[in-house]
Amino acid sequence: MQKNCMFADKANQYKQPLKHRAVQPVQLVKFCKNEVNFQKLTVCSIGNVNMPHKINPGDSVIFDFGDHCVGYLHFAIEKYQSTQIVDSPVKLKFSFGEFPLEIVTPPEQYKGWLGCGWLQNETKTVVFAPYEGSLERRYAFRYLKIERVDNGPFPIVITDLFADCVSSVDFVAAPMCNFDDPVLNKIYTMSVKTLKDCEQDVFEDGPKRDRRMWIGDLRLQAMTDYVTFENIDLIKRSLYLFAAYRTDRGFVSPYIFPDSPPHTDEWIYIDYSLFFISCLYDFIKYSSDREILAELYPTAKEQAELVSNLLDRETGSINEKIFVDWCPDLDKDLAVLGVFIYSLRQLLWLAEQAGEDTCWIENEIEDVKAILLRFYDKTSGMFITAKGQLSWHSQLWAIISQTVVGDDAIRLIHTMQEINPEYKPHTPYMMHCYLEALDKCGMQDEVIQVIKDFWGQIAEAGFDCCPEVFNPSDQFESPYGAPEINSACHAWSCTPAYWLRNYFPDSEV
Amino acid sequence: MQKNCMFADKANQYKQPLKHRAVQPVQLVKFCKNEVNFQKLTVCSIGNVNMPHKINPGDSVIFDFGDHCVGYLHFAIEKYQSTQIVDSPVKLKFSFGEFPLEIVTPPEQYKGWLGCGWLQNETKTVVFAPYEGSLERRYAFRYLKIERVDNGPFPIVITDLFADCVSSVDFVAAPMCNFDDPVLNKIYTMSVKTLKDCEQDVFEDGPKRDRRMWIGDLRLQAMTDYVTFENIDLIKRSLYLFAAYRTDRGFVSPYIFPDSPPHTDEWIYIDYSLFFISCLYDFIKYSSDREILAELYPTAKEQAELVSNLLDRETGSINEKIFVDWCPDLDKDLAVLGVFIYSLRQLLWLAEQAGEDTCWIENEIEDVKAILLRFYDKTSGMFITAKGQLSWHSQLWAIISQTVVGDDAIRLIHTMQEINPEYKPHTPYMMHCYLEALDKCGMQDEVIQVIKDFWGQIAEAGFDCCPEVFNPSDQFESPYGAPEINSACHAWSCTPAYWLRNYFPDSEV
Repeated sequence: MQKNCMFADKANQYKQPLKHRAVQPVQLVKFCKNEVNFQKLTVCSIGNVNMPHKINPGDSVIFDFGDHCVGYLHFAIEKYQSTQIVDSPVKLKFSFGEFPLEIVTPPEQYKGWLGCGWLQNETKTVVFAPYEGSLERRYAFRYLKIERVDNGPFPIVITDLFADCVSSVDFVAAPMCNFDDPVLNKIYTMSVKTLKDCEQDVFEDGPKRDRRMWIGDLRLQAMTDYVTFENIDLIKRSLYLFAAYRTDRGFVSPYIFPDSPPHTDEWIYIDYSLFFISCLYDFIKYSSDREILAELYPTAKEQAELVSNLLDRETGSINEKIFVDWCPDLDKDLAVLGVFIYSLRQLLWLAEQAGEDTCWIENEIEDVKAILLRFYDKTSGMFITAKGQLSWHSQLWAIISQTVVGDDAIRLIHTMQEINPEYKPHTPYMMHCYLEALDKCGMQDEVIQVIKDFWGQIAEAGFDCCPEVFNPSDQFESPYGAPEINSACHAWSCTPAYWLRNYFPDSEV
Repeated sequence: MQKNCMFADKANQYKQPLKHRAVQPVQLVKFCKNEVNFQKLTVCSIGNVNMPHKINPGDSVIFDFGDHCVGYLHFAIEKYQSTQIVDSPVKLKFSFGEFPLEIVTPPEQYKGWLGCGWLQNETKTVVFAPYEGSLERRYAFRYLKIERVDNGPFPIVITDLFADCVSSVDFVAAPMCNFDDPVLNKIYTMSVKTLKDCEQDVFEDGPKRDRRMWIGDLRLQAMTDYVTFENIDLIKRSLYLFAAYRTDRGFVSPYIFPDSPPHTDEWIYIDYSLFFISCLYDFIKYSSDREILAELYPTAKEQAELVSNLLDRETGSINEKIFVDWCPDLDKDLAVLGVFIYSLRQLLWLAEQAGEDTCWIENEIEDVKAILLRFYDKTSGMFITAKGQLSWHSQLWAIISQTVVGDDAIRLIHTMQEINPEYKPHTPYMMHCYLEALDKCGMQDEVIQVIKDFWGQIAEAGFDCCPEVFNPSDQFESPYGAPEINSACHAWSCTPAYWLRNYFPDSEV
C-alpha cells in the first residue's frame, strides 16, 4: 500500500462526528413458518414491550425495533424483586437480525464461505445487578433476540433497552417527496433510509457486513446523496481517502477499511479503479470545486493510464480481476471495455475543466471504442464476447459508454430484452446499470417501471431498506452460500431515489 | 432492607480510587496430566512470550502471567502481514483460571450448584483490526487461554496483552518480613498477596467469585490489615457500609453487594451479625477513634440484643441460620453460643470506652456462659451438643469465648486433639479459629506449627494466594459440587500474616 499523507490529512479534515438517535423496541414478536411470506417466515406480534421485562434462566425474547437500526445496543438490568438474591453473574446471548431468517438460523449451522465472525451475536456476562451498559460492537438490525444462558436460580428484569443509532446524516435532512404513487413513495423512503444507514464515518457498503467503503458502491451512494442529503463533506472525505491509500502499483483500491488508521489491500478490480474517475466527475459536476479537481485529477488520469497499459489491444482483454456483477461464469471482457470508455469520456470532461491536455484521452476513447465494436455481431445484432458469450452486461455497458447511441442503442436494448440472454443482472447494483442504459436510450417510463417491478417486490417482501441481493425467483439466493449473512441494507441498491429525484424535480413536499 | 443515609454517606466519603499496575504474561504453558501434582495437573512451560504472537483460526494458546492477577484484560490485535486480507470479524474466546483445573474443565461440563455465570470466560468479536481494547468484566487469574473461534481464513497477531491489575493497596505498602524460615516467608507472602487482591472498592471475600463483602471475612481481613497495609479508610468504609444497609429486622447482613448502589438481602447468619461487634472492637482497639465508636456503638449493641431475643434459654438454641463452618451436618448450637459470649465480651469493653451502661451486657455474659456450660460433659471432658454431637467447633469456641480458661482450656484442647472428633474444621476460616483457641491457651509454638503444616501444604500445591478450600486428603473437595469454581484467593485464609506479624514484631526487614 502506498499512502499520500497530504490526501490522508485532507480526508481527516472532512471527518465529522456521527449523529445519534435513541430507538426503543416497539413490540415483542415471534417468527412463524409460513409458505407465503418471504423466506417462508412471518413476523407475528405477541405483545407490547412493557418495561421492566422479566427474564428467567432459559427464557428468550425477540424485540422488534420497528425499523432498521444501525447502532449500539444499550441495556439495563436489575434484580426481579428487592429481596431476591442475585448471587451469580447473568449471561445474556444477544442475536441481531436485519430480517427473520438471520435470527432463526442457528449460528452453528452456518455454512457460508464468508467468515462466521460476521454473524451478529454476542454473549455478555454481567457480574452485578443493577447494571447499565452497552455492547461494544455496532450492529445493523431490526430484530433482537435475548436469551438468558446462565443457570442462576433467580429472575432478572430488563429495565431499559434501546438502540443508540448512528449515522453521518439526520433522516429529516433528506427531502420529503410525494410521487403520487404509494409504491414509488415507499421505494423512495427505503432508498433514502438505506443511504442514511450506510453513511457513517465513511460511506459503507453495508452497515451489517463488510462495513468498508467500496468505490463501486460509493459512486452510486454519492450520485444519490447529491439529490437527497447533500452530505458533501463525507463525499470529499471519501475521494481523498481513495486517493490517499492506493496499491503499490498506484491503482485506486476497490475498498478502504475505515478503521484507524485506514488501510487497504493490494488486489484490484479494474472497473472499480476506473470508477474513481466517475466519482470525481460527479463531484465536480455537482460542486465545480476547482481546488479538489486540481488535486485529484492526476490520480484520476493515472487510473486510465494504468488500465490502458494492461489492455491487450489484440484480444481486447485485460488480464486482471474485474467485478461488473456477481453473475456466475460471466465473461466480463466487453463490459469492462464499456466501463473504460465511460470513464475516459468523464476524464475528458475533467481534463477540459482543469485545462489539461486532452489529446491522449481523445485518442484512447476512439481506440477502445474500436476494440469494443469488433465484438458487435451483425447477425444477432448484439455484442458477443471472444468466448462466444451473450450477456445483458455486454450490451448495457456498450450503451452506457455511448459506444452505441441513438436509435442503434434503442434497437440494441430491444433486441436484448427480446432475446433475454442467459447471463442477466444478478444484483441491484447491476439493475442500476440497466436503468442507466434505459435512461441513455431516453426510456424514462421504462426506468420507472423497472424500479416499480424490482424494488416494489423488495418492499413487498418486508424489507425496511434495499438489500444487497434480491432474486424474486430464489428467495434464498446468496453470493456467500448462506442467505442469513446477506446484507439487508446495502448501499448499491439505493439508487431509485436518484432516479425519482431527477425525473420528478418537483416531488418535494 | 433498611438504609441509614448518614452512614451510607460516610461510607462513600471513605471510598478511594483503585491503584493500577500493568502485568504482562511471562511464558506460554500447557497443562499436563500428572498423578503427583495438585489436582493431577502440572504446568509445563512451552516457551517465551514473543510479541507479536500469531494466531490462526482454530489456534489456542495459554499465557501464564507469573502470579495471581486481579484486573482487566487489555489486548491489541493486528493483521498478520500488511498485504493480508482481514475481511471478517475475529472472534476470540478468553478463559481465565486462577489454577489449571479451571481452564482444563470444559464449561459445558459444569455441574456445580452455584450459577455458571461465575465461570470466567467470555467470547469477544473484534470487527476491525488493528484493534485495541479491554474486556469489561474484571477477572482473577494467573492463566489465560485464548482461542480463535471464528473461521476467517487469515491469521492475526496479538501485538499487546496485559492485565491492568487493580487493588486498593500497593503491594509494596505491606512490610517486607523475614521469619528465618523459607516456608513461613512464603506463607507470609501468600497471605499478604491474598489480602491485597481482595482489597478492592470494598474488602471482597474472593476477587474471582462472590466478590461481595462478607462480615466474617472482613473480621479476619481487617485483623490482618492492621498489621500489614493499615488501609484504615477501607476498614472505616466497610464498617459504615454494614451499619448503613441492614435487614428490615435490624440485623447486620452477612454480606453487602458492593455495586452501586450497595445493597443486601434479607436473610442472616447469627454469628455474622455478631461479628459486627468484633469488627468495631478491633477497629477501636487499633484507632481509639471516639467519633466512630459513638456513631456505631448503638448498631453493635443492637446486634447483641437481637440475638439475645432469639435465644431459647431452655434449650440453648437459636432458631436462625448460623455459619460457623462448612463442615457437613455440623450441629452449630454450642459454637454460636461461644461466638455470642465472645462478642458480648467485646461489646462490654466498647461500652466502657463509650461510657455506656454495662449492666445488661455483664448479666448477659454470665447467663449465656451458664447455658453453654450446661453442655459440658464431665465424662468425656468435652462439650457435647443437645443432639449428642461432638465437634472441634464446640470446643474451640468454648475456649475462644473464654468460657473455659487457663489449665481447663489447655486440658480441653488436648482432649479434643486426642479424641479427634469426626466433625473437624473444613475451611481455612475455621482453621483460623483453631489458631485463636491455641493462642488463647498460650500455645504459640503450636500456632506456628499448624500454620506451617496447613498453609505450607497450600504453598506446596502451587497456589500463589491462600484458597477458599484446601483439603489435603481430597484435592477435589468443593462446597459447590465443582472444584473448578472454588476460589484460589480467598480473604478468610489470609490470617497467617496476622499471627506472624504479632508473634514476630521484629520481623520487618
